[in-house]
Amino acid sequence: MQQFLSVEDVSDPMALVSEAMSCKESPLQASQLGNGKTLGLIFFNPSLRTRMSTVKAAQNLGLETIVLNTGQDSWQLEIEDQVVMNGNKAEHIKEAAAVMGQYCDILGIRTFPGLEDRDTDYQEKLLTAFVENCGRPVVSLESATRHPLQSLTDLLTIEELKKKEKPKVVLTWAPHIKPLPQAVGNSFAEWVNQTEYELVIAHPEGFDLDPKFVGSATVMTDQNKALEDADFVYAKNWSSFNDYGAVGDFPDWQITSEKMALTNQAYFMHCLPVRRNVVVSDDVIESDQSVVIQQAGNRVYAAQAVLQSILKSL
Amino acid sequence: MQQFLSVEDVSDPMALVSEAMSCKESPLQASQLGNGKTLGLIFFNPSLRTRMSTVKAAQNLGLETIVLNTGQDSWQLEIEDQVVMNGNKAEHIKEAAAVMGQYCDILGIRTFPGLEDRDTDYQEKLLTAFVENCGRPVVSLESATRHPLQSLTDLLTIEELKKKEKPKVVLTWAPHIKPLPQAVGNSFAEWVNQTEYELVIAHPEGFDLDPKFVGSATVMTDQNKALEDADFVYAKNWSSFNDYGAVGDFPDWQITSEKMALTNQAYFMHCLPVRRNVVVSDDVIESDQSVVIQQAGNRVYAAQAVLQSILKSL
Amino acid sequence: MQQFLSVEDVSDPMALVSEAMSCKESPLQASQLGNGKTLGLIFFNPSLRTRMSTVKAAQNLGLETIVLNTGQDSWQLEIEDQVVMNGNKAEHIKEAAAVMGQYCDILGIRTFPGLEDRDTDYQEKLLTAFVENCGRPVVSLESATRHPLQSLTDLLTIEELKKKEKPKVVLTWAPHIKPLPQAVGNSFAEWVNQTEYELVIAHPEGFDLDPKFVGSATVMTDQNKALEDADFVYAKNWSSFNDYGAVGDFPDWQITSEKMALTNQAYFMHCLPVRRNVVVSDDVIESDQSVVIQQAGNRVYAAQAVLQSILKSL
Repeated sequence: MQQFLSVEDVSDPMALVSEAMSCKESPLQASQLGNGKTLGLIFFNPSLRTRMSTVKAAQNLGLETIVLNTGQDSWQLEIEDQVVMNGNKAEHIKEAAAVMGQYCDILGIRTFPGLEDRDTDYQEKLLTAFVENCGRPVVSLESATRHPLQSLTDLLTIEELKKKEKPKVVLTWAPHIKPLPQAVGNSFAEWVNQTEYELVIAHPEGFDLDPKFVGSATVMTDQNKALEDADFVYAKNWSSFNDYGAVGDFPDWQITSEKMALTNQAYFMHCLPVRRNVVVSDDVIESDQSVVIQQAGNRVYAAQAVLQSILKSL
Repeated sequence: MQQFLSVEDVSDPMALVSEAMSCKESPLQASQLGNGKTLGLIFFNPSLRTRMSTVKAAQNLGLETIVLNTGQDSWQLEIEDQVVMNGNKAEHIKEAAAVMGQYCDILGIRTFPGLEDRDTDYQEKLLTAFVENCGRPVVSLESATRHPLQSLTDLLTIEELKKKEKPKVVLTWAPHIKPLPQAVGNSFAEWVNQTEYELVIAHPEGFDLDPKFVGSATVMTDQNKALEDADFVYAKNWSSFNDYGAVGDFPDWQITSEKMALTNQAYFMHCLPVRRNVVVSDDVIESDQSVVIQQAGNRVYAAQAVLQSILKSL
Repeated sequence: MQQFLSVEDVSDPMALVSEAMSCKESPLQASQLGNGKTLGLIFFNPSLRTRMSTVKAAQNLGLETIVLNTGQDSWQLEIEDQVVMNGNKAEHIKEAAAVMGQYCDILGIRTFPGLEDRDTDYQEKLLTAFVENCGRPVVSLESATRHPLQSLTDLLTIEELKKKEKPKVVLTWAPHIKPLPQAVGNSFAEWVNQTEYELVIAHPEGFDLDPKFVGSATVMTDQNKALEDADFVYAKNWSSFNDYGAVGDFPDWQITSEKMALTNQAYFMHCLPVRRNVVVSDDVIESDQSVVIQQAGNRVYAAQAVLQSILKSL
């Protein structure tokens, strides 16, 4: 693998899921593969799971890690071209990315959208600038519009737990108090569209995802109907794509045990962090059907499969 | 050892001191014991000694470390039950702790008291929530009411330096400009009560420690009298336990050379950081009797003995 | 080598450049030299290149690293003597440095000048306090008045690229929007004065460097004349040494392709970060003559040569 920005970089997504499963069975199977090499993890936004799980994955591979919190550890970067840099940005992304590429063999980048201007966010300027300027394979640690490591984790989790060949997977919008990116929803749809699962996406009117990601999924605005016979319920908030960045006020979309009772004893999934009793009720997240911790744990093996594949191609 | 939250988790405290001494003599004696394993260090409060010494201890054991500054590197955590999380806390401790447990084999937690409500602090909610939810052995890196790694260090230091079997050890309150936790004083008393040393605790009226920790120690409110014939003087400020969080205004309690002259050429100890000429005078801390640097250096071997013992039990 | 604070600590600067070149050819040539040892990197000021390149250098040597951002990860330090520490500084540098020396075998320190009082800055109090109190070899990661790791990198870069025995090297002042330290300019002059290169320093009237560093270099206030036949152009802003900390308003000193056309097809150098179209135009920094990325990449091997030399002397 040459880079990992979206499912399009993966020749066979289900083979990568199998690889992740193999890493989970035997985490130290390639514990020297990364020796003498360095993974740079550049966080433009805060992170707990991604940071810890990716560092752990690197450790399993004997790969050294350098973590940099941009802004906090260094300074603000300019990303526009042909700017007279007499403001508060002390370095251009072109130099910063190229320099990081001098010190690291692989670069992981986390960058969130501004959620103010859709075109700007969907251009993925920052991620693209790294890819174009760093001269190294880039791994998305969640970008403005996609979160492919999360989706690979999600597929691994479904594969571990599914009781039938083609489970019904429902990705449902859930309430939140402030605008969140569409990245997790976008990527999940994009990845599941590569599988044989039945995918249903449920959201209130006006909260459609970009059709590019929805693909052949069934879309419903009646959450209860969508949940019928679901084998997996993946709850996630996203702000509006059309009325860009708008937060919806639909408290009824919270996943409660009444909602879960409509399903085929579905597993409950969420990428975390999650606001309890806003997105999901205490009783659901603490129930036996909740697999959010296993799902989070799987982040290690998703990252490990990706890093392993990139290391082999270096 | 299954966890390290207080002296109660240690079957034989003096045997652990011996183990720490052995780590100091030969720091790389078990340099592969931690291979393939990861220690998570979660700081809810800033740290210099604890952070550096624990990382060094882990390095000596071949144990990988992931350091997380909560709030700074990630986000605020909710610790109360049954809350509708529509405020500024983006994740519940139940998920956060469980997830960290997925990535780490041992978790170290630092959390300070609020010093506003005594019951809240002495319930140790945050530390307890980690223990209950992370599924891994937890090491206290100083909690609201105890600092056991410091106490183990202190005993190691006294054992190295004592000139008689049962030295007289004086823990004396010292001035400070703002309210400090009782954790160091509490733990020191609790640990020394497990030894054969003579323990005297000196403090101004109203600055008693919780009797639970004081145990069989002699308590005095006349500092000069307490210091007579002392072999070790351990100075430390703590805010009031009874008038919870109050700062005392007793500048005379500063440890000066006049005070030290009352002792049996005692060694001067402090856990650091220390405010010079408030807690202790320049001439005392710079004297040959001051062992604060040796004491701080011993933090490595205390942490190493604890981690080693936990690793062996995994 | 016992420490690395300035060129004066290096018995044979060109031999150290050769050593750095050898590290670049074979980065893992001494990959076990640092085993069991720890490098502490203490940042009082933010850093991208220095932090990442020094960590990478340590990794190449099998040396463990502990990074501490003072202030952010710990607390403010007092550096004045005989102070009653009842203000906002919780620890004295004397204790902090000595304690860090307990946990680390080598300490790297980054500290910037205040640019308000010249005497204070040029006394290098903070760096000196570390040297005097930590009991370990200290490596400057840029101090108030010097940046020797950068200069060693610069010489390595010139040696790699030079087409004649004694190239003409022009260090030219360049515009900036806020006061910057003189450290890079000072050190570069100091190091080049140890070589056989022809050194010309160009700056506007009033922007002389401290004569101590200028040494035998030719100084010009006509930038165009200075650039004639230059083989290397090193652009860098510094605030005034005489009118201490003053920013000059000389936009004409920006390095443009017109300026570069005056040279002998010179290579363009800068230590980065650089403000585009203030210090240097887009077309120059993106041209084939620009070697700023190679120069930044060389930071790894400069640091590695220094650390290797210190490790051998331990």
